[in-house]
Amino acid sequence: MSRIDGRTPDQLRPVTIQRGWSKHAEGSVLISFGDTKVFCTASVTEGVPRWRKGSGEGWVTAEYSMLPRSTNTRGDREAVRGKIGGRTHEISRLIGRSLRAVIDFKALGENTIVLDCDVLQADGGTRTAAITGAYVALADAITWAQGKKLVKHGRQPLTGTVSAVSVGIVDGVPLLDLCYEEDVRAETDMNVVCTGDGRFVEVQGTAEAEPFARDELNALLDLAVTGCTTLDAAQREALAATL
Amino acid sequence: MSRIDGRTPDQLRPVTIQRGWSKHAEGSVLISFGDTKVFCTASVTEGVPRWRKGSGEGWVTAEYSMLPRSTNTRGDREAVRGKIGGRTHEISRLIGRSLRAVIDFKALGENTIVLDCDVLQADGGTRTAAITGAYVALADAITWAQGKKLVKHGRQPLTGTVSAVSVGIVDGVPLLDLCYEEDVRAETDMNVVCTGDGRFVEVQGTAEAEPFARDELNALLDLAVTGCTTLDAAQREALAATL
Amino acid sequence: MSRIDGRTPDQLRPVTIQRGWSKHAEGSVLISFGDTKVFCTASVTEGVPRWRKGSGEGWVTAEYSMLPRSTNTRGDREAVRGKIGGRTHEISRLIGRSLRAVIDFKALGENTIVLDCDVLQADGGTRTAAITGAYVALADAITWAQGKKLVKHGRQPLTGTVSAVSVGIVDGVPLLDLCYEEDVRAETDMNVVCTGDGRFVEVQGTAEAEPFARDELNALLDLAVTGCTTLDAAQREALAATL
Amino acid sequence: MSRIDGRTPDQLRPVTIQRGWSKHAEGSVLISFGDTKVFCTASVTEGVPRWRKGSGEGWVTAEYSMLPRSTNTRGDREAVRGKIGGRTHEISRLIGRSLRAVIDFKALGENTIVLDCDVLQADGGTRTAAITGAYVALADAITWAQGKKLVKHGRQPLTGTVSAVSVGIVDGVPLLDLCYEEDVRAETDMNVVCTGDGRFVEVQGTAEAEPFARDELNALLDLAVTGCTTLDAAQREALAATL
Amino acid sequence: MSRIDGRTPDQLRPVTIQRGWSKHAEGSVLISFGDTKVFCTASVTEGVPRWRKGSGEGWVTAEYSMLPRSTNTRGDREAVRGKIGGRTHEISRLIGRSLRAVIDFKALGENTIVLDCDVLQADGGTRTAAITGAYVALADAITWAQGKKLVKHGRQPLTGTVSAVSVGIVDGVPLLDLCYEEDVRAETDMNVVCTGDGRFVEVQGTAEAEPFARDELNALLDLAVTGCTTLDAAQREALAATL
Amino acid sequence: MSRIDGRTPDQLRPVTIQRGWSKHAEGSVLISFGDTKVFCTASVTEGVPRWRKGSGEGWVTAEYSMLPRSTNTRGDREAVRGKIGGRTHEISRLIGRSLRAVIDFKALGENTIVLDCDVLQADGGTRTAAITGAYVALADAITWAQGKKLVKHGRQPLTGTVSAVSVGIVDGVPLLDLCYEEDVRAETDMNVVCTGDGRFVEVQGTAEAEPFARDELNALLDLAVTGCTTLDAAQREALAATL
Repeated sequence: MSRIDGRTPDQLRPVTIQRGWSKHAEGSVLISFGDTKVFCTASVTEGVPRWRKGSGEGWVTAEYSMLPRSTNTRGDREAVRGKIGGRTHEISRLIGRSLRAVIDFKALGENTIVLDCDVLQADGGTRTAAITGAYVALADAITWAQGKKLVKHGRQPLTGTVSAVSVGIVDGVPLLDLCYEEDVRAETDMNVVCTGDGRFVEVQGTAEAEPFARDELNALLDLAVTGCTTLDAAQREALAATL
Repeated sequence: MSRIDGRTPDQLRPVTIQRGWSKHAEGSVLISFGDTKVFCTASVTEGVPRWRKGSGEGWVTAEYSMLPRSTNTRGDREAVRGKIGGRTHEISRLIGRSLRAVIDFKALGENTIVLDCDVLQADGGTRTAAITGAYVALADAITWAQGKKLVKHGRQPLTGTVSAVSVGIVDGVPLLDLCYEEDVRAETDMNVVCTGDGRFVEVQGTAEAEPFARDELNALLDLAVTGCTTLDAAQREALAATL
Repeated sequence: MSRIDGRTPDQLRPVTIQRGWSKHAEGSVLISFGDTKVFCTASVTEGVPRWRKGSGEGWVTAEYSMLPRSTNTRGDREAVRGKIGGRTHEISRLIGRSLRAVIDFKALGENTIVLDCDVLQADGGTRTAAITGAYVALADAITWAQGKKLVKHGRQPLTGTVSAVSVGIVDGVPLLDLCYEEDVRAETDMNVVCTGDGRFVEVQGTAEAEPFARDELNALLDLAVTGCTTLDAAQREALAATL
Repeated sequence: MSRIDGRTPDQLRPVTIQRGWSKHAEGSVLISFGDTKVFCTASVTEGVPRWRKGSGEGWVTAEYSMLPRSTNTRGDREAVRGKIGGRTHEISRLIGRSLRAVIDFKALGENTIVLDCDVLQADGGTRTAAITGAYVALADAITWAQGKKLVKHGRQPLTGTVSAVSVGIVDGVPLLDLCYEEDVRAETDMNVVCTGDGRFVEVQGTAEAEPFARDELNALLDLAVTGCTTLDAAQREALAATL
Repeated sequence: MSRIDGRTPDQLRPVTIQRGWSKHAEGSVLISFGDTKVFCTASVTEGVPRWRKGSGEGWVTAEYSMLPRSTNTRGDREAVRGKIGGRTHEISRLIGRSLRAVIDFKALGENTIVLDCDVLQADGGTRTAAITGAYVALADAITWAQGKKLVKHGRQPLTGTVSAVSVGIVDGVPLLDLCYEEDVRAETDMNVVCTGDGRFVEVQGTAEAEPFARDELNALLDLAVTGCTTLDAAQREALAATL
Repeated sequence: MSRIDGRTPDQLRPVTIQRGWSKHAEGSVLISFGDTKVFCTASVTEGVPRWRKGSGEGWVTAEYSMLPRSTNTRGDREAVRGKIGGRTHEISRLIGRSLRAVIDFKALGENTIVLDCDVLQADGGTRTAAITGAYVALADAITWAQGKKLVKHGRQPLTGTVSAVSVGIVDGVPLLDLCYEEDVRAETDMNVVCTGDGRFVEVQGTAEAEPFARDELNALLDLAVTGCTTLDAAQREALAATL
């Protein structure tokens, strides 16, 4: 069986990771998963939110948003509607949790890093591209903070790597990294966030049409782990280059 | 090993399901999972949201909320703060999706059922208790709608049963149905929504401290399926009684 | 003349006051006036709002809300609409003022007590049931604060008791404690808040259809005082029991 | 005993009612009760709110607001804070109810009249001045609507007159028409809305310091009726003049 | 050519400036440009916004608003809609910038002056009337602050005078001080804020129908400077009178 | 005198205009004025806002926004704060007016085009870059609409071209196209929107420090016209290329 765009079921779309895409941010990445493009910036500020003051620990959080015409038909701006929608909230929280899973807050010290993930163009998998790109921006921001001595000598706030991919069952076949058209037709849709050593940070599976069985769940997890392994390599390669 | 409240790792807290707790709602349930108490009402209205008009299909949605003092320390009212928080949004959406998984919208016809799940007292597992209780309220509301001829003769909008439970790893041990104290200490926390025939509607696993391995995920899923089987029986028993 | 539910004009509906309905709150009551059920919790926190800091005086405030399906047809959640409605504001303020009328703020010290009154089921008289129940929750919270030494030895913040009841003229007849059907048909509607010694804390009379004459006002006040005397006894009886 | 401003206990402040203060509004009044000045406009539009369409009946509603520097210290604008406060809501509703008490909605036909009452300068009694002035603006707007044939020939939507005054107990003495300084010191504060024939539309009494006894309530009501009689005469005189 | 109201092209409408229109505000003015009436108050408070603390410099800001029925058809209240509209924001910012142009913040010291400009009746040119009137209220407020020793001896925070006027091209003819009917028909509309010495603080020209040429721009600027010279004289005359 | 970045006073920064930057939008442009980068999309929808229905005329509007980290220090998201700020409102309105100045609404027919201008990186002049880029996106969207027969044969909705540039006086010298550092230091700041034939659509000059004299204004307008002539050529060149 061949997919809409000619991929095999276990094949990712072409992934590109461009670092240093902003002259202002301490870390910045334009990541693409095929036609999905997300602009991720990491902003470092000294100090932490009030509830964490004096703890000696830092904080990492994220905000996700879609530009109004990142999608096929224009959506209203949430700023104009005056409130953040449920989906936006949910994805922002997911990105934040995913990145916090690989942070040693003691090592970060009382600094805050905010990851802004703005979708410039959407074609499925925006949240997984956001997590994968935000990790790279976060790594660059931490290197910057180390250079500025905001993070103390000899400490490494990053405890691992993290990437994410979507998987789903379309016409009964488990597929890796769904594009929008596949996502719409998926019976089951799952987003999986993995660390570089193959463990799970988040597993979010949803039956869109039919409930899914245990063996389907297993097949999807297998695909996702494979995908994250490839994304992990792409992140390492991007970070290995000189900025 | 014994748990905080003396349960075995694979033991649910005592579950009670009281139907008919409201004189106004078409379906209503006060459900408790131990000290967690959620009041679920199902409200039937003729007609559907604008985007669904003329489709011949119905709609089911849910709203979740915690009373300000349902928790150990009082939380601000979202109505007073003027916006719904991210967690509330996320859980409302989860409840709605879970119930829609067992609805045949054609059979429901152009009717809308809103499930309101208000947490009167919280001790962990409020979203899973809400789903489990809301299913019973939904079933009663559908029976009511059939009696009122809103749903056509010979059609059954409910295509299955659905319940939910939380599982997590605490001190390295997989546990079923976490109470609040366990939830706070859990390394991994997962909410699982199952149909009565043992398939999955939602699987949401989050590493709170450490990423989790595949075998840990499997152990948690096993526990969850066991728990949902028991909850499914409790729902059937509750619905078998005369209202 | 007999009323819809068989009561005499000067008869209250059955009143029940269940204390200790929440395991978390410092004071909690489920009160019912017939089919009207309000869940009242009292939350004690050390400290006072900014504008009162350093005064040596405490603060008592209240928030009232109706669950969306507490009424015959479902109402929108105020949190979802993003703002508190005028009626909710008005009743919250009334409850707060009524309870503050029997508080010695110096004796309370710099502590704040918030009364949350959430209507689980509405059948007329929700604000008066809320005041009557909230008083009992408040009394329990103060006892708790005394036990915790938040309130200094030998001081009694409660200076009296307070209860409330609705009265109205229906078909020309003054009636005590209107249920919803009576309330809708009332020509005049009045809510009266009394202390245990028969004085007034609030008198709010509204002509719904026809302006009312002085003698009608007097007849309504007579009824209200009678009703509050009975409610005062019910409060005392509830508080006399062991929690 | 003499009052702060030299009045006797049963004396109103000087009342002025200037009609036609706006070139745009169908009815408009600048009313002053001493230093309290309220600008009241009545706006007529054909048609009624959605929930009243097809009823053949009209609608009257009101919005009250204080300019930010109408008070001694500047208050935040509610538009800037993004929400209407509880007190504003409460007073807007009170004004609306008071005016609706003297309207025959059938005679008004499907027209809506909105009364805007904006406090230009506050010195106590703003809500009672607003009601008293809004009545005059409303009367002029109805005359305008009759001239435009929006109201059918031979019908009189106004069924009576309405005015309002505050009363209160200060240092144990019942006083009529409290200015701000008296209002702040009042033990009991009451706002009374009367029709021209001496009946009550609204009675809102609040114990600010001490609960009040029945005889105090009676003394206050006596004063209020006297005051409204005088205000009624001032309204008639204003309306008798050529606009 | 004669204008709608009989003026010559370079003629202002009658201007009146009444000082001391509020008993509470430190400076207050009711200004009229023909039928446009704006009530301007200046409120002085010690201290400055957080971002300016410790700078030794003061702050001046403004808020503009239209009463709902200041216009020909009633507009919704921004407080009720829960947000400030774009036009209101824009004009508030313009007024604030215009007044800050003639303030020496060092001389003002750490004091804040807020100008509230509320349009009671609108007939074109509300923003220019607001600036012109607010300047006078500001001058009175500064005199007050000097009297209270909030502003140090020998310092003059006002560095000049400022006034504003609208100009526009109607049917090809440049006109000064447009009334509403002219404004609606204008091909080009410009608001000009000048200091008393004939220099510019703000120039905001907008092509409403056709782009405008350089010579048209010049003709409009000539008219505006003439108008501001007259307004400057009116301000001086008003301020010369005893308050 | 040499500028911060080595330009002469009348020199623009390097301008790039990349068309077709979005696969979804009917017109899309990434424009840069030096380090200022704005992503402009044009979205075409059939139909017009309610107030324009049945007029036979179309509508063009714009929304401007800055990504949170487009600036040197991260700004809060307006969607998170729940309201659009005054500056955002003002610039959105300016962009919309500027583009409407070159549209024949009759020729456009009842279609709406929304221009979204999202600042990816800011270094001064974001609003002028937005207008200049949005014009190109608008032109592409109109071509698209003509291809889809949404715009009738033989009609050209675009009546001209429009571009914009900032000018200002820094250290007494009039400069073209200010970068951020220059903008901050400018005594006078002006944004000018011109049509391709050298006429003005908008002129917005603001004295930031000192009021400006007529000859300064003239010098700035001269510079701006020169700049817009160059931008007009860049737009034509970009549109002449095959998409």
